[in-house]
Amino acid sequence: MRPTRTAAALIIGDEILSGKIREANVFELARVLRERGVELARVVVIPDTIPGIVHEVQQLSKAYDHLFTSGGVGPTHDDVTIAAIAEAFNVSVVRDPDLERALRDHYGEDVTENHLLLANVPEGVKKLWSARTPWPLTVLDNVWIMPGIPEVFRMKLEIVREHLEAGAPFVTRSVFTKLDEAALKPFLDETVSQHPKVAIGSYPRWQDPKYETKVTFDGTDRNAVERAFTDFQQKLPDGEPLWTE
Amino acid sequence: MRPTRTAAALIIGDEILSGKIREANVFELARVLRERGVELARVVVIPDTIPGIVHEVQQLSKAYDHLFTSGGVGPTHDDVTIAAIAEAFNVSVVRDPDLERALRDHYGEDVTENHLLLANVPEGVKKLWSARTPWPLTVLDNVWIMPGIPEVFRMKLEIVREHLEAGAPFVTRSVFTKLDEAALKPFLDETVSQHPKVAIGSYPRWQDPKYETKVTFDGTDRNAVERAFTDFQQKLPDGEPLWTE
Repeated sequence: MRPTRTAAALIIGDEILSGKIREANVFELARVLRERGVELARVVVIPDTIPGIVHEVQQLSKAYDHLFTSGGVGPTHDDVTIAAIAEAFNVSVVRDPDLERALRDHYGEDVTENHLLLANVPEGVKKLWSARTPWPLTVLDNVWIMPGIPEVFRMKLEIVREHLEAGAPFVTRSVFTKLDEAALKPFLDETVSQHPKVAIGSYPRWQDPKYETKVTFDGTDRNAVERAFTDFQQKLPDGEPLWTE
Repeated sequence: MRPTRTAAALIIGDEILSGKIREANVFELARVLRERGVELARVVVIPDTIPGIVHEVQQLSKAYDHLFTSGGVGPTHDDVTIAAIAEAFNVSVVRDPDLERALRDHYGEDVTENHLLLANVPEGVKKLWSARTPWPLTVLDNVWIMPGIPEVFRMKLEIVREHLEAGAPFVTRSVFTKLDEAALKPFLDETVSQHPKVAIGSYPRWQDPKYETKVTFDGTDRNAVERAFTDFQQKLPDGEPLWTE
């Protein structure tokens, strides 16, 4: 069985912390990582400042197999992610000739030095390409440098999906019930103690007419997940569960 | 002028990290904090495990004026936030008599010990009430213990809004333009260097027919913000900005 791989996400965004916009990239990233068998273990949102980004990149890239940064990669004064990642790895910022050529092709005669700032990268990045996107994704060591704009983030996620080495795939089963968490607790406690290899979660809804609580069974051992899922259902009273997924 | 106050948010949620649900509470919290003149400076999302929560609560409650936790406050095995916050402050978990009475009133004869688990709190919490919500919000030291369910989180935010001491209010102005970031860069760089007390942000849109870039001016000094906002607009070419807010 493949080992479990872990990831962290570092969201660089004054605009999220100040409540100007709703963060939109973590959910998309979490789903792709999950699909690839990589466990997203930590997300941190910080302002657009170099010392803060340097510190987090150093900590997170050491502690997890992969780090995904989002934001701060444009050409203006508040785009400091490239400089900070370079500093975190003690390398220079250099002009990448492939990216420069792509930018010159794109802007033609109107190209300016400010457009070409987008070709600046930390020295030593790998460039990952996909047939489905016009621009590459740059990766320094285990740091995947993603843009903040959600539409562009999603495009680059396609490159992540193609290139990220797969870990042990996750299996999830879900049970939907009209019982509340207090009523479910004895059945949950029994199941948890009998199935230590399975992560069991309980999620109440707020005034949802369809169901009261969703119980999830997660793990990388398909048989163990299925046994916990089945065992839990057999403990429930008549008429339960409402349905399973 | 009132001093700037800072806050951090700790989101406790396996279901967010595994991509099962989209995080929904940070945006709501960020807006209320902003409105109250409190700067949200860091958000961390971690799994539902006691050691991880204890560590983060200790770090974040020391480093910021306020810490808001979200999630893990139900009665089941995966609800470990109360125990973890108690451990972080080296206090016991105790049954709160006011909360117990409220739960007994709510459930009547059907009340069980599992319902009453919701009355367990770290010893020494303050309870904050609002006329607009049936349940209090519990706060230990500077840690505001919020629920994870978005509907209930929003109800308790009303209590935060009523009780959180106000800091220096933030002022924000915005300029919308059809120029791209590369074209705006010289005007931005000049404005940034001339107005060091104002936080200036530049946010490009992706294929939005209405505008290309939004530039924001933020600070607690209203006059400084207005001067930077006006000064920047005067640098722009004819026909710009498209509009301001």
